[in-house]
Amino acid sequence: MNELLSQVRVVLINTSHPGNIGAVARAMKNMGVSSLYLVEPHEFPAAEATARASGADDLLAAATVVDTLEAAIADCALVVGASARLRTIPWPVLDPRACAARMLSVAASGKVALVMGRERSGLSNAELEHCHYLVHIPSNPEYTSLNLAAATQVLVYELRMAVLAQGDSPQLAQQPEHPLATAGELDGLYAHFEETLTALGFLDPQNPRQLMRRLRRMFNRTGLDQMEVNILRGILTAAQNGGKKKTRD
Amino acid sequence: MNELLSQVRVVLINTSHPGNIGAVARAMKNMGVSSLYLVEPHEFPAAEATARASGADDLLAAATVVDTLEAAIADCALVVGASARLRTIPWPVLDPRACAARMLSVAASGKVALVMGRERSGLSNAELEHCHYLVHIPSNPEYTSLNLAAATQVLVYELRMAVLAQGDSPQLAQQPEHPLATAGELDGLYAHFEETLTALGFLDPQNPRQLMRRLRRMFNRTGLDQMEVNILRGILTAAQNGGKKKTRD
Repeated sequence: MNELLSQVRVVLINTSHPGNIGAVARAMKNMGVSSLYLVEPHEFPAAEATARASGADDLLAAATVVDTLEAAIADCALVVGASARLRTIPWPVLDPRACAARMLSVAASGKVALVMGRERSGLSNAELEHCHYLVHIPSNPEYTSLNLAAATQVLVYELRMAVLAQGDSPQLAQQPEHPLATAGELDGLYAHFEETLTALGFLDPQNPRQLMRRLRRMFNRTGLDQMEVNILRGILTAAQNGGKKKTRD
Repeated sequence: MNELLSQVRVVLINTSHPGNIGAVARAMKNMGVSSLYLVEPHEFPAAEATARASGADDLLAAATVVDTLEAAIADCALVVGASARLRTIPWPVLDPRACAARMLSVAASGKVALVMGRERSGLSNAELEHCHYLVHIPSNPEYTSLNLAAATQVLVYELRMAVLAQGDSPQLAQQPEHPLATAGELDGLYAHFEETLTALGFLDPQNPRQLMRRLRRMFNRTGLDQMEVNILRGILTAAQNGGKKKTRD
């Protein structure tokens, strides 16, 4: 597990539906966050939580159940509360990306908590006052209330993206199958196009520019690899031979 | 509703659990995306879908149910498939942020589709070939499979963040010269390629898959406009006629 993400804790307050606890555990594990605290859950452990956790039931088994928010965050250097609404009490609000950056910078030296309120009513004002910041997920003003696990998914996703952006990110830069064609190889392809299209009567040699320019722009934009250049030249050769190869076979 | 987000369509393929369809609708509406297409859902409409949609049941009522992926994307200028795994067939892969940027840039001039595969098995290879890009949510290598609605939530969240980042900046990147080709127009092009290359003896009709897949991948990546599709089809027609047109001139 990533060291910074291992400093992150998700705290759920008074969750009503055990299915949501399971779905939160799944969202966390998908993003590499594993520490889950439950403040007075309505029902836990519960079969529905385990079912919705899918393969993340190890997080449920290791979850810490406590009586108060204070107990859940006592050892944390940063506490951020999720909020669906703008509060009457002005409080510093971060968007999820800024929240991730802030949490990771503190995680280098201490534990950090992401606090998720009740499904219906969120955080109380007393709970809010334990938070250093609020995080607000920008949402459709006409329909602001995200599902608890969906909101958690977005927030831990941003944490993972921030961790990857830091690292020499061994991202997925899928290794290319074949090397990219060189400019010289592309010139060979374009010359082959020009020759073939002229032979087919498709290109007017008196005025080839517009068509060849369009083809160049199109294939340059593609970023052809060497195998693709070979395929295209094979097609051009077959077109020049007018399918003669076929009759030879 | 935001104009760019109104161009975005979410396509769910063969969804097994109706609850997931409802949760996807909620995730979409939270982020201001409303167009939902369902390809052969196992059970729909369904009470569980409506329950999980919470206040987003209007999206379910307006959802379009179709028989094939082709029907769901025929009028789309960009198709991005969500993929939890690295494929044996290398295909251009975006992360969710780059995916959002790409989708919004195309949404300025056409409809764009985000295609979500089955809960267990994702997208088939045949479905993959309809996608211009794949989008992969970076996840814990030991536990990669996000819930369908959670994955959708992350992807539409990034779309909303990208829209907000554009803000009052009236970007409107260079107006394209010609509209992008739709998925249906591209299918016509690929069918024309297959027919011509078979006639030329370049393609073995017994085993066309590898070559056609490479061509699809190459041209999907390019983002062809309608003029370019016309040029390519003109070349194919000329090749089929074996330059007969020339002799007539």
